[in-house]
Formats: sequence, C-alpha cells, structure tokens
Amino acid sequence: MIIGGSGYSGAELLRLCASHPHLEVVAATADSKAGTEVADLYPSLSGAYPNMAYVPYEPEHVEHADLVFLALPHGASQRIVPEIIKDDARHIVDLAADFRLDDAALYPQWYSETHQAPDLLNEFVFGLPELYREQITGARMVAAPGCYVTCSVLALAPLVAAGLVQTTGIVVDAASGVSGAGRVPRDQTTFCTVDEDFTAYGLLEHRHTPEIEMVLRRSADTQVEVLFTPHLAPMSRGILATCYARPTSPTTTSEVLSCLADTYASEPFVIVDHRLPHTKSTLGSNTCHITARVDPRTGWVVVISALDNLVKGASGQAIQCANLALGLPETCGLGVTGVYP
Amino acid sequence: MIIGGSGYSGAELLRLCASHPHLEVVAATADSKAGTEVADLYPSLSGAYPNMAYVPYEPEHVEHADLVFLALPHGASQRIVPEIIKDDARHIVDLAADFRLDDAALYPQWYSETHQAPDLLNEFVFGLPELYREQITGARMVAAPGCYVTCSVLALAPLVAAGLVQTTGIVVDAASGVSGAGRVPRDQTTFCTVDEDFTAYGLLEHRHTPEIEMVLRRSADTQVEVLFTPHLAPMSRGILATCYARPTSPTTTSEVLSCLADTYASEPFVIVDHRLPHTKSTLGSNTCHITARVDPRTGWVVVISALDNLVKGASGQAIQCANLALGLPETCGLGVTGVYP
Amino acid sequence: MIIGGSGYSGAELLRLCASHPHLEVVAATADSKAGTEVADLYPSLSGAYPNMAYVPYEPEHVEHADLVFLALPHGASQRIVPEIIKDDARHIVDLAADFRLDDAALYPQWYSETHQAPDLLNEFVFGLPELYREQITGARMVAAPGCYVTCSVLALAPLVAAGLVQTTGIVVDAASGVSGAGRVPRDQTTFCTVDEDFTAYGLLEHRHTPEIEMVLRRSADTQVEVLFTPHLAPMSRGILATCYARPTSPTTTSEVLSCLADTYASEPFVIVDHRLPHTKSTLGSNTCHITARVDPRTGWVVVISALDNLVKGASGQAIQCANLALGLPETCGLGVTGVYP
Amino acid sequence: MIIGGSGYSGAELLRLCASHPHLEVVAATADSKAGTEVADLYPSLSGAYPNMAYVPYEPEHVEHADLVFLALPHGASQRIVPEIIKDDARHIVDLAADFRLDDAALYPQWYSETHQAPDLLNEFVFGLPELYREQITGARMVAAPGCYVTCSVLALAPLVAAGLVQTTGIVVDAASGVSGAGRVPRDQTTFCTVDEDFTAYGLLEHRHTPEIEMVLRRSADTQVEVLFTPHLAPMSRGILATCYARPTSPTTTSEVLSCLADTYASEPFVIVDHRLPHTKSTLGSNTCHITARVDPRTGWVVVISALDNLVKGASGQAIQCANLALGLPETCGLGVTGVYP
Repeated sequence: MIIGGSGYSGAELLRLCASHPHLEVVAATADSKAGTEVADLYPSLSGAYPNMAYVPYEPEHVEHADLVFLALPHGASQRIVPEIIKDDARHIVDLAADFRLDDAALYPQWYSETHQAPDLLNEFVFGLPELYREQITGARMVAAPGCYVTCSVLALAPLVAAGLVQTTGIVVDAASGVSGAGRVPRDQTTFCTVDEDFTAYGLLEHRHTPEIEMVLRRSADTQVEVLFTPHLAPMSRGILATCYARPTSPTTTSEVLSCLADTYASEPFVIVDHRLPHTKSTLGSNTCHITARVDPRTGWVVVISALDNLVKGASGQAIQCANLALGLPETCGLGVTGVYP
Repeated sequence: MIIGGSGYSGAELLRLCASHPHLEVVAATADSKAGTEVADLYPSLSGAYPNMAYVPYEPEHVEHADLVFLALPHGASQRIVPEIIKDDARHIVDLAADFRLDDAALYPQWYSETHQAPDLLNEFVFGLPELYREQITGARMVAAPGCYVTCSVLALAPLVAAGLVQTTGIVVDAASGVSGAGRVPRDQTTFCTVDEDFTAYGLLEHRHTPEIEMVLRRSADTQVEVLFTPHLAPMSRGILATCYARPTSPTTTSEVLSCLADTYASEPFVIVDHRLPHTKSTLGSNTCHITARVDPRTGWVVVISALDNLVKGASGQAIQCANLALGLPETCGLGVTGVYP
Repeated sequence: MIIGGSGYSGAELLRLCASHPHLEVVAATADSKAGTEVADLYPSLSGAYPNMAYVPYEPEHVEHADLVFLALPHGASQRIVPEIIKDDARHIVDLAADFRLDDAALYPQWYSETHQAPDLLNEFVFGLPELYREQITGARMVAAPGCYVTCSVLALAPLVAAGLVQTTGIVVDAASGVSGAGRVPRDQTTFCTVDEDFTAYGLLEHRHTPEIEMVLRRSADTQVEVLFTPHLAPMSRGILATCYARPTSPTTTSEVLSCLADTYASEPFVIVDHRLPHTKSTLGSNTCHITARVDPRTGWVVVISALDNLVKGASGQAIQCANLALGLPETCGLGVTGVYP
Repeated sequence: MIIGGSGYSGAELLRLCASHPHLEVVAATADSKAGTEVADLYPSLSGAYPNMAYVPYEPEHVEHADLVFLALPHGASQRIVPEIIKDDARHIVDLAADFRLDDAALYPQWYSETHQAPDLLNEFVFGLPELYREQITGARMVAAPGCYVTCSVLALAPLVAAGLVQTTGIVVDAASGVSGAGRVPRDQTTFCTVDEDFTAYGLLEHRHTPEIEMVLRRSADTQVEVLFTPHLAPMSRGILATCYARPTSPTTTSEVLSCLADTYASEPFVIVDHRLPHTKSTLGSNTCHITARVDPRTGWVVVISALDNLVKGASGQAIQCANLALGLPETCGLGVTGVYP
C-alpha cells in the first residue's frame, strides 16, 4: 500500500513494485488526486496499472496492507503514522524526513515546527542499508533517507569512520535534477526557469544538513560539521555530490579509494572505482557510483558520488529497506543498470 | 552474442539482456573498441558487466552462440550474415536495414549501393511481432525494423488494412531523439548543436521511407505512397510520429480509434487510448502509445504514436523477436512501464 | 508603456526596448506582480532596469505614453483598449489575439466567448509587416500576430498568392518551445513534464488556426483550409513549422524557392535559402528562416520556417510594427543575428 | 580581423562585432573551414554576414587590420603573435591562455609544453578590465582571461584584497555549459552524453587553476592556493562558480556583500546583490552576477558568481578589452540584458 502515490516518489514506487516479484500494490492514495486514474496522471504506468485509480487516504484502507510506504510531503507522516501502527504485524517505510532525525529538538531548528510524535522517533530505524543493514532487517518502522543525504553519506561515512578526514570544515557541494523538487508546479520548477540554467538554492539552511551531520556523527563517533550547498541542474533526475574534506594526516588517492572500495566490497548497489561518476549512469537504477581523489598540491580530499534521486535516493532505497524488513532478498525488484543514454 | 555491442543499440541489448531470465551474453564484439571494458564505455552497465571487455568480431566467436544479435551500421550485416548462417540451429536477429526490404532493387535507389547478399533477402522475416507474429515464431532469421518504421507502421497499418484511409497522399511527420543518430560524435549531434534546437533533416529522402511503404503495401494489399519527414528534437530518446491521411469515406475519431484498439486489443506492448502520446511515457519500456483523431472541419485523419527508439524501436523489439524465435514467452525481459519523469 | 509586463512577451519587450534608440519604457504594469521589482522577477533585466517596479494597471497611467504595448492574456485587451484610445495621438500595439480576426463570429467559435469590442476589430491593422507594411505604417492600432501564425503564414502566403499550391488539404505541423505557454507554472510546463518529451497538443482546435486561414485567404483571394497541429518540444524558445501543400500543377523545388526568395528579396528579417532552418539559428533575433522542397515522388510541396517565438513571433514583431507606426526605421532596435550556440 | 573564426568564441566575436558601432570585421580565418561560408557553419549569422567566407590564415592578411582577435586553440597564438606584432600600430587581443601567465615555468607544469615565445609574456596585459583597467587602456597586447578564471576571480579578488578571507584552503566548485568545450565534436560533448547528466571533469589538474591563483596572488599580495573543481552541466552556455573560503576573522554576510558591492559599484557589467545568481540571467550579455553569504554555523564564506562563458567569459570580454585598448567607450557593442527565458 502506498500512501501518497501521486508525487514522483509515489509514482516511482508504483513503477518499481510493478516488476517486483513479491510486492503487490493493493492501493495508492492521493487526496488531491482521488478518483484520478493512475494512468491519466502517469501514462508511463498505463501498461502496468491500466485500471487503478487513486483513493483518498483513510486509516481503514491500511488494514489489508502488510507493508505501507509513506511518500508524503514533510510533516504529514507525523500525523498518519500514529494512526496506522496499531497492528503489530504491519511494516512501515517512510520516505519523508519526519522520523529520520533522532533528536526532536532539531525539527524546530531546521523545519520551523515542533514534532507531532516525538516519542516515535526512536522507534524508527534510519533506512540506509549500507550503514544500518542489521537494524533494518526485520524492522517494523524504517525512515528511509532522501537523495542528498544518501549521496553525501555514502561518500563520506567510510572516511570519517576510518579517521581519514577531519570532522569539521567539510563541504558538500551538490547538484540535483528537478524531480527532487516534486511534481507540483512552482515558479522555480517550470521548464523555462530551469532549462539552460544552473543555480544554487537553499543556501546555508537546506533541511537535509542535520541528517548528513547525524549519520556522519554516528560513523565518526564525534560531532561532524558540514556545509551543504545544493544546486539545481537542468535535468529531471540525478544527484552528484562533490565532497571536500581535510585529511587528518597526509593521505593519497589510493588510500582513500581503498577505504571506500573495501567498505562497499560486498554491497550490491554501491560501485567504487577510479571513474568520475556521471548521474546519467545511474538513471532508473538503484546504484550509487563513487570515486575519490586527494590533491597533492592543496591537501584536499575530494569524494564524488552519484545516484538517481528517485531510486537510490528515494523509492528504490525504500524498497531495499522493505525487502530487508520483510525478510526478502535485498536486491529483489531493484536494478543495477542505468537506462543510457 | 551481440555483434556490434558498442553502439547505442548494442548497449541497450546488453542492458535488457542483463535482466532477461533466459538470455546470457556470451560475448559482445566491437571492432573499434576491442579491448575496451564495457563498463568504461558504458558506466551504466558496470553493475551488470563489471569485467566484460569488447572483443573483435571473428566468425568463430559465433560458434558457441545459439542466438546472434547484429547491431551494426548499415551494410555490415550483408557481409557478416553469410559467414554465420552455416550452423542451422543458430538464430539471427539483425537490427539494421540490410535484410528488411524484400526487393533488392530498392537498395541502390535508397542506399546508393547494390545489395551484397540479395538471395538472403527472402530468408529474413520482417521482425514486427504485432503484424508478423506467426512468421517470426521459430524463425531462424529476423530483420527487426527500426524506430521510425515501427512507430509509423503501428499507427497506420490497421487503417490501411481496414480501408479506412486512402493509400496515397499520406504524410508522416516525425520527431526523434538524438540517440537515433548513434554514438559516434558528429557535427549534427553535439550537445551545442542539438540543445534548444528543432530542425528537419533527411528531407524527402530518408532511407526508412521504402520500409514504411513496403509494410503498409502488404497491409493494404496495394501500393502505398508516403512522404516521410523526420525532425531532430533536443532529447536523448523517443520518437513521436504524427501521421496524416485522407479518409476513404467520411469517418470519425471514434471509428478510427476503435479500429486501432481492436487491432491491438491483446497486444502486450501497444497501448491505444484517447490520451495524446508522450515520448517520455515510453522511456526505457517496450511500449508504443497510439491515439487518433478525425478533423470534422478538414476531413484529415490524424494518428499519433510514440515509442522509445532504442527499445520498441530497436533492441527491445529485437528481444521480443528473439523470444518468439526461440519459443520463449514473448514479453520475457521486456518492461511496460516507462522511467518517469 | 507596457501593459502586461510580467509575462514572457512583456519581459521581451523590456529587453528589446532597453537597447532601442528611440523607445523608452515609462512604466510596466502587472496586476499580480504590482510592487515587485522587475529585476526580482527577471534578474536578466537587472542591468537595464535596476530600480523599476511593476505598477498596477490604471487607465490614467497611460496618459503620458505615446505608444502602448499590450502583452496580456487573451481577452484582456478587449476590455482595456476602449479605455485608452480616447487620445487620438497615442499608438497601440496589441500582442494578443483580441483584435486580429476580422470576423467577430470567429471568436465564439474558437475562443468560446463573444467579443467585447467588435466595433474596434476593423480599426486594427494586422501587424505582419512583410504582408501589410503599407497599412501598418503610421497606423494607430496594430494587432501583431503571434508565433505560429507568423511562422506558418510567412512560409505559405507567397505560394497561395502565386497560385502555386492548392488552398485545401494544407497541413501545418509545428513544434514550439515552452515559452509560448507563458510564465505561469502549469502541470504541462514543469521541467520534469517537458524535459526529454515530445508531444502534440491542442489537436484539431488550436486557436490560431483561424488567423492562419484568414491571412492565407487574403493572399489567395479565396477560402483556404488548414489543419494545424502544434507540438511541444523540450526547449525554451523557437518555432519550426513544417507545412505541406499540394501543387496546383507539377512544380519544382527551384520554382517554389524562387517564389519565396523573390517575395522576400528586400525584407530585412526574412532569410530564404536552401538550408534547412534551425530554430536555434534565430534565438534572440527578429529573423525568420525559410526553405522549401518539392517531392518528385509524391508531389508534395514542403515549406519549412523557423523563428524565435518571443521575438519575430511576439515582441520583436510588435516593435517592428511600432517602428512603422511611429515612422521610425523599421529595423530599429531589432537584431538579425541569433545567439548561438 | 578575427583569427580563428570558426570556433564558438570566433563566432561570438562575429555576432558581437555585427552590432558594434566602431568595429568592422575585415576577415575571419579558419584553416580547417577555409572556403566555407560563415552562414553555412553558423546560419545564425546569415543575416549579418550573408556573403562572407572563411579564409586561411596568412600573415599578410593581417596587414589591413587595426585590431586582431585571436580565438585559437591553446598553443597556436604563441606561434602566430610573433609574426603579426611587427606593425607597431596594431592591437592584439588574444582569447587563449598563451599569454596569460606571467611565469613561463607554469606552462610546462600545467600545459605539458614549453612556451614558444616566453619573452612576449610580459608584453601582454591580463585582460580583466575590472581589475586591470588602467593597464588595458591603450594597450597593444591583451590576453583576455577565459570563463572560469573571470567568474572565480571577480568573486574572490575583492575579498582576498581586503584581507577578509584566508589565502589557503580556498575551493572553487564550478559548473559550465558545454560550449566551453568548443565546437569540434568529441565523445564527451555529444548530446546523448551530456543531456540529463552532471559530472565533474579535469579533477585537480584543470589548466585554469594557475591563472586563478596568479590573479588572486596579485590582489592578495601573497601566495594563494585554490582547489578548482569544474563540472559539466547539460546546457549550452553559462558558468556558475561557488567559491568557499575561510574568514580571517569572524565576519558576516553583510560585510562580505558590502565589500563586493563597493568594489564593483561603478562597474557597468558586474551586478552584486542578495539574489542567488542564475547562469541563465546572463545569457548573451556581458554581465557577471555575484552574491555572497557567511554561514554563522560553520564559518564558511561562500561567494557565488555567474556569467555567460562565451560573452563575459570570452568574446564579450575581448571586445571590452579592445574598446579600452582602442580608446572607445568601454561598453560599446556590449549588452547588459540577458536573453530570457
């Protein structure tokens, strides 16, 4: 069951579930689009869902679902989760930020609002399988991280964990495709605004900063300070994060690449090599491509990672978490080849 | 086995075979890229082919392959096919135009060169399953049609077959993404040339015209005359064909749509409805979306169809044909949902 | 003075007026953006208008303007023009369709509404200088045609005027950039919807059809019937019209090209040659590029034309008309070179 | 006279000269395109140069030119300049890097080749008018800097000059449109490679790094160390540089913005304000838009600047320099409004 099926993450869940051997979508809710055919909003799904219409959200709809994906705008999950967790057997994977931060005090600071269900924050596991596979396996409640966080953290966590880089002065300079901004038309997301343009946004105060810092803090076992600068690139999908950190002691490209390659050696979706990652290589797949360099001239450690913001950065990751939560093979229904070109 | 694995059709065959349950790629040839890692040329394939390198084409390589896909520039298949058809048990699916036309005289006219293996022309079945499924089933040699032909012919064949439209004065006005022009860099395909541009090309003399006319002639059982005007649109994938024909007698949108819907009622990959097709709806899938209108004011019948030129317009169709040729389920390894947005 | 300065046509008027030696913008109105700095909405204009804010429309604002451009959504000019034409000395150039059709009965048919100022329809001159230069010179009221009409009519008018092509069965198949749909965000104009997509829209019933037919009728001196099919291409600017017509008697590419070249021999903004027009060649300029072919196989006459929909298809044409109306040199402030690439 | 008129910088010089009141192009050379009509290679220029063909470079061609622009690939100017500087009255503006660095030893380090005319290095003035206006005025030989350098240096020079930021640990993370890679087709610049992709390139070793460091060193009056990371964005034009530096002592957004605004208060082409710069705002214009922020949380100073890489980042700047060199008004023939959208 998908709550919030009309946005891009919801539609991507529908796409991925259509070819998943063990998941069947019993219903997709969308309050603003209730009654609309899925195939009218997304003709790309007409082959797989020729006759499904969106339904309005009602708690009882959830009764027959073993698994619930929540793909809602920020803030909505906080209100819905308490209504649907009564049945102990049901699994929930939330794609929003509502249950990702472990400290309720961060919500007023970064989201300008008090959390509505702070007691549930510790019930949720942070849904990044590469770092928290054990906790996600069999978990009832998973808060899957989004695109920027996944991309930045997969690049940096091994290095802070290994003590190779300093935990302050880190800069994450990232560029995203426009689908990250959602389906609803806005001034900033019209074709004419974005096409042939490159610009920064959310400067200094992007809401995903505290998640990046939280996960890196856990890996480093000390406070980590990150300046995160997102940019908008004229493309539909894809995130590239270029991460800058100072080494703790002189290091080399080879040492940093080895650290990353070793960490992810048996990961099915993380590809570490010497190639410069391209967002387009990941299109439609659940992969994250990573490389790194150390500049002998200036000392900077540079790590670059790329993924598809709607797959490994959203719905693919949510399904990867659901697979783990339900005891299915982790890679079920998830591809490793990008649609190219 | 894929002969010509370094072009976009070859890479798409590699992508689709990676998730095909019954096809395994034993080798991919590429003379100009022999020795290059597949993953270096296409990092998008690094997850599925981490250690495969292109090999040069040599006839003996083919010995261990039950199925050979040929994805070569025009003219090359004519020279290779005679070398590799000695083994009776092997199936060949050619993605080029070399064996599509049934009349050898058309090659000098449209391709400015004499056919090198005219005696084989009648050995090949035209690989459009929606029209020639019976012949393709179990066939040894299949010539799969390309993007423009598939798109135009799926739109028009039912109408000429039903006698609903006149067989002269037909116009097919189509727009294609740039991948149709291949991987090799050319003046006309650089980003700066194509980006923000829309233009016609190949005016009056595009090589796929005689294929469109041939298939429609077979459906109509009489000569069919088509003016085909391709355009280049600033996108990587996708073909949209807007087809104009005069009705044989006054008709209606409803009658024309019914004719198309009835024809394709049980087709797994053709979707007929009232929605205006978008190329993007088909991205990465093997579907063709079709609609039609009749203009009560001017009488014109307008049929519009869309598909992904590298899937239903090339490699997906080739696999659909291979499935039929090998006796596998026709839809094996082929998706019906587009990657969107 | 620009009434409706916040849309793309309004902004383009501001851009062109900034480098026009004889026009100075005394004010730009925008009801929904009143109080907003021009440079906040269009940072591209911050160099030329660092301190101008939009004002709300009020009839008295017009008092000090010798020339008024109206760049409003359809229907608004009908209500405003009667308020501002009292001063005999003032010139008006309307960029909307409100005063383009000469037959008030066409408005209910194509725009689903009765015209509010039908008596003014005959006061307005149709602002296509290449066809109606004499009437526009010194005119008080000019209704400048839009992008599709200008592009189609410049391609076809000389041929129907010369009797080279039949006046029925004409098809205009055109593709437009997204700026033609305006600045206000809509589902159909978000980046993710348009990017990598090509689609038809407004099938059979696009509102500019009767204008095309009206102008061609005047040139042909008989009724002309056109089927007009617009498409949306993933680019910000540009229109390409591919026009199909049957010859009245057998003709040749050379004859058709000569007819066009002779007609426009002394036109400063129309370029006729054998090259296939690219929309990108016209970017930012007031030019229209035209070519033609005759297909010896099928007989069709094909004429292709390209222009920048916001310049020669809107604001550039309006300034060209204003130059003529005010007695200035016609090319004043208008460029003939495109920004490329 | 333009030597190297067939590349994008050469074509942009032709475009800008076409509307320059005091410059007339007597000839444009292009060895590989000699004999080709300018309008065939660039139909966008057909309105302004209907009958000009490229000529091969020969030293005597230069004889009648008061001003020579060199728009050649790196290395070529070193060979040509000695041939054409014999006439004392002639002015030269070189758009390549050949004469930008003041230390000949940097050429083998960054360009892997020894400089061919090291004695001329000190004859050339660095053509960045905002920093070196006095030296450029009346200069015979000007080496105009390119897009990355201009964009980065305009952002950072005032801050290092004022001692507001530290001179080590600076990171310039920039994204460029594809025209920066030139007109000649390459694997990395085909539409299908670039479209929908974002990637880094030239990591750690981009050739423009030493120019950035050289100019900042002059402003800081001490060594400056910069890590420069260029990215390729799917757009034709535009550069955005996001620059990170540590403050020398705690500072604020307001202080940093004031420093920039005061520095450029009377500059015709540099616009400093609180708005986040968009590359698209500068399209076709000679402007550079700059803003800055100081992050109170992490202390980082972030300066962001945008310009059109072919105008202020190449040919526009070259003309600005030529204006100064020839004693013309500096803004002659150069626009401040971007073509938008």
